[in-house]
Amino acid sequence: MRTSKYLLSTLKETPASAEVISHQFMLRAGLVRNVASGLYTWLPTGLRVLKKVENIVREEMERAGAIETLMPMVQPADLWQESGRWDDYGPELLRLNDRHERPFVLGPTHEEVITKLISNEVASYKQLPLNVFQIQTKFRDEIRPRFGVMRGREFLMKDAYSFHTSDDCLKDTYQVMYDAYCRIFERLGLDYRPVIADTGSIGGDASHEFHVLADSGEDDIAFSDGSDFAANVEKAEALAPAGERPAPSQSIEKVSTPNVKSIADVATFLNVDTNQTVKTLLVVGESAEGETAPVVALVLRGDHELNEIKAEKLAGVASPLEMASEEQIKAAVGCGAGSIGPVELTVPVIVDRSAAHLADFVCGANQDDFHFTGVNWDRDASNYQVEDIRNVVEGDPSPCGSGNIIIKRGIEVGHIFQLGKKYADAMNCGVLMESGKHETLTMGCYGIGVSRIVAAAIEQNHDKYGIKWPEAIAPFNVAIVPMNMHKSARVQETAESIYQRFLDAGVEVLFDDRKERPGVMFNDHELIGTPYIVIVGERNLDAQQVELKNRRTGEKTLVDIDKILDIIK
Amino acid sequence: MRTSKYLLSTLKETPASAEVISHQFMLRAGLVRNVASGLYTWLPTGLRVLKKVENIVREEMERAGAIETLMPMVQPADLWQESGRWDDYGPELLRLNDRHERPFVLGPTHEEVITKLISNEVASYKQLPLNVFQIQTKFRDEIRPRFGVMRGREFLMKDAYSFHTSDDCLKDTYQVMYDAYCRIFERLGLDYRPVIADTGSIGGDASHEFHVLADSGEDDIAFSDGSDFAANVEKAEALAPAGERPAPSQSIEKVSTPNVKSIADVATFLNVDTNQTVKTLLVVGESAEGETAPVVALVLRGDHELNEIKAEKLAGVASPLEMASEEQIKAAVGCGAGSIGPVELTVPVIVDRSAAHLADFVCGANQDDFHFTGVNWDRDASNYQVEDIRNVVEGDPSPCGSGNIIIKRGIEVGHIFQLGKKYADAMNCGVLMESGKHETLTMGCYGIGVSRIVAAAIEQNHDKYGIKWPEAIAPFNVAIVPMNMHKSARVQETAESIYQRFLDAGVEVLFDDRKERPGVMFNDHELIGTPYIVIVGERNLDAQQVELKNRRTGEKTLVDIDKILDIIK
Repeated sequence: MRTSKYLLSTLKETPASAEVISHQFMLRAGLVRNVASGLYTWLPTGLRVLKKVENIVREEMERAGAIETLMPMVQPADLWQESGRWDDYGPELLRLNDRHERPFVLGPTHEEVITKLISNEVASYKQLPLNVFQIQTKFRDEIRPRFGVMRGREFLMKDAYSFHTSDDCLKDTYQVMYDAYCRIFERLGLDYRPVIADTGSIGGDASHEFHVLADSGEDDIAFSDGSDFAANVEKAEALAPAGERPAPSQSIEKVSTPNVKSIADVATFLNVDTNQTVKTLLVVGESAEGETAPVVALVLRGDHELNEIKAEKLAGVASPLEMASEEQIKAAVGCGAGSIGPVELTVPVIVDRSAAHLADFVCGANQDDFHFTGVNWDRDASNYQVEDIRNVVEGDPSPCGSGNIIIKRGIEVGHIFQLGKKYADAMNCGVLMESGKHETLTMGCYGIGVSRIVAAAIEQNHDKYGIKWPEAIAPFNVAIVPMNMHKSARVQETAESIYQRFLDAGVEVLFDDRKERPGVMFNDHELIGTPYIVIVGERNLDAQQVELKNRRTGEKTLVDIDKILDIIK
Repeated sequence: MRTSKYLLSTLKETPASAEVISHQFMLRAGLVRNVASGLYTWLPTGLRVLKKVENIVREEMERAGAIETLMPMVQPADLWQESGRWDDYGPELLRLNDRHERPFVLGPTHEEVITKLISNEVASYKQLPLNVFQIQTKFRDEIRPRFGVMRGREFLMKDAYSFHTSDDCLKDTYQVMYDAYCRIFERLGLDYRPVIADTGSIGGDASHEFHVLADSGEDDIAFSDGSDFAANVEKAEALAPAGERPAPSQSIEKVSTPNVKSIADVATFLNVDTNQTVKTLLVVGESAEGETAPVVALVLRGDHELNEIKAEKLAGVASPLEMASEEQIKAAVGCGAGSIGPVELTVPVIVDRSAAHLADFVCGANQDDFHFTGVNWDRDASNYQVEDIRNVVEGDPSPCGSGNIIIKRGIEVGHIFQLGKKYADAMNCGVLMESGKHETLTMGCYGIGVSRIVAAAIEQNHDKYGIKWPEAIAPFNVAIVPMNMHKSARVQETAESIYQRFLDAGVEVLFDDRKERPGVMFNDHELIGTPYIVIVGERNLDAQQVELKNRRTGEKTLVDIDKILDIIK
């Protein structure tokens, strides 16, 4: 491809609208353009990357025995009413009417369409299992689309759905998909991790997310340094500290702590570590309709953070989690939020496992400007329930039983799930078994965010000059940058002849034939991130050489012109 | 691919809902399934065909120098307001609101998005010409979707848009696209014709449709038997008959024709050819707002059909064309619709060129149950205007000046168009010229109905047993049908070994490993239309042979097993 016949569309300046690195580079390198909030046009360079990702995903899905279909983006509402999601799905589901005022949705996923299809097409257990996938444009009406294609509204997704007559069969296919996903992310050249995800009501290892590791990731992933355990921090269990709780060695004492409210301030003021203090949060409890909601106290070690997902799953706690208001706190405890503590508290108390393991700790005295020191459970504060309600932190023992937790940030690019019978039940999807009985099917579903992978790859692979594509998904294998070609017939001839040799050999090459200064051209190709850049300059031609730059390593070498094709290949 | 791991989904019965052959076979052969009116899921077999069509289109677009992008399906209304199509486009444009009540459309085409993009990205004439394409899912809210994917609502289309600083440059690219389209349809293996289409306000040969010829086509195409002229019948000019109009030889006479109304009845009753009669149709004329619409008489030879598109373009005739009501006819002429004629008619009269060439003709007498014979223009009927208002018929002289018209039916699968400045003007899309002047660009647009081609290919290539795919777009190259494999280890081993050899050689093969009767399997593969069917049967194995059936010719030959791969390849 010659740049003169191409829509290169690189930008020198970083658009102010772009918050994250990948979005900045996707705009600057001419990969995408914004059409409206969360809606993008893929420019030629971006589409080349997107298609490479798509093809790797397709090849591995086919290798894993999945068969490809293509379902419509516009779906009739009645399917969603049948599954129950018409009511359950929030405003991210874009609903619309056709010219006859019949209701439709723009599909964010296709469980309904595929379950109805299989229900119509498959009659016998003999036709199963089946694993059906598509690579298709989806729409999710995000309230605040952001980060470019990372959280857009229209996006390209691979979604697969498998159908089984037994849980064992589902588990087999789930493992096949798990392995296929690992191969996909390996082939893409990305540093990724399968991560245990929320298993919901099914239990077991029934769901994994696949994350691309990147400092800018939205999710915290907890790894074990002693095994291959990895889980979303929100979902990783915080174990109770090992051993017995130490015996009390101090007596409880009320101390004046004027205007000392945050845990950091209390620890400094009383000269103790924050891990020797506890913090007590009041949240809204569950209530019957029409009743005033009670409040519930959640007690954590001073250096720990509340895990809202764990807390809101507990009986007695309202879901979604809601912090008590100042008035509710005043009414229940009689002091401000910074002075609450578990001693003689009259509301229900839930204590995190680590906080419950403390002896001789510091806490609020339920009186403004006072704290207790030397507090001990049972002796000074009783009537409490111990639960896991905190986020794991680095150094925690891994819940897998081996090693300790380290935390890295990740971008979710895939999710596989043992779905069970939710849709098959609702939509009456079953088959005749060998026994003659009609049985409802069990399902798995398997998603990959194809367009999101492009952004995630950039978050993981860039420097300050631009993108450093993994070779498998680079828009071009190599760029040819001739220096001042329009002033040197020799440079032009050499560049053209190398270009022709690359084309003949099937190398994907971008030939920069613009009349631009070398600096402008270099900057563009560093930005676009082509893995290899061949620089054709007058001063190396006497020796029949060109310069070859490796974009990832930055290494530059002089190469004989007649060897360049072999080296690139 | 083994049928046991595949979603074959063939049907024995023709679904009652399917009106046309292609829709019937697409359902029966398991190519598509209906999800809602005009919305289809492409099953694996159908998608394989669709992808092959898509790939041929993509390759030829790239070869022709077009660059691929991907624009969003959901488009913001403001772009459509800017182009003017928000008001001009009828209810086929599906409009919707997002969660913030901002208006959007589902894109039926992408002129607005691409024109805005080029307007933002291209600043200088040096970056032009550019030809940008995408292969993308479109939506058109047809009032009555029918014929399966032939006239669906959501469909796959290749749309390309070219941008130029001069008409000459546009014409060059138009010719490149014309040639690329010819290559595409040749590679697809279809009998097709480029056809002159309505040139609108631009003039010249500025638009061509590409039609796949098939008896079931919706469009009539007029060809010359003496040149390569071809035009949509609606758009082909009907020339005036050669020579002078014959002189009158009869005198006008009023004859009683009780209850004789249709042209056929009149001709029979008076014992003349229908081409010696004229029919007079009253249509609604143009009127200023608030005024009562006048009526206008259109006079055609009895054996000719009115061309509504030609008629409604005439000054004085309302557009869209509307026939006068019984009351309007009664009021204007005083008789029923079957007795009108041009003699002493008091409304404006427009006479077709061929009707105007008649002498001594028969027409209605503007009195129920009476006709005139021996009528002659000017002598008996004056104050008329002569225009081309009829469809051409076979045998007409070709408007190209060479040969006569023959008519075939076609399915429109492509359309190329010299669009001019309509969108570039409206959306301020221009560049800086070498002269330093800012100039508005001129555009071409080029569409191919990718999903429609699949249906059109079937309309052209089938017999009563099923589809006869051209090899380039067949879902599989070859099917292996083992006879009673489950009763013969020898048949099974041979079939498996041929299957493995095909797979290793990259042949796309469907191996029918179902426990079905041979007849069921044959019928399915004839229906699906795989070009070659290898039949492995016990009785030929002693001679180390299998039977090879050519689906298109029906020819069956015995082939040595060790030669089968070479023959297929």
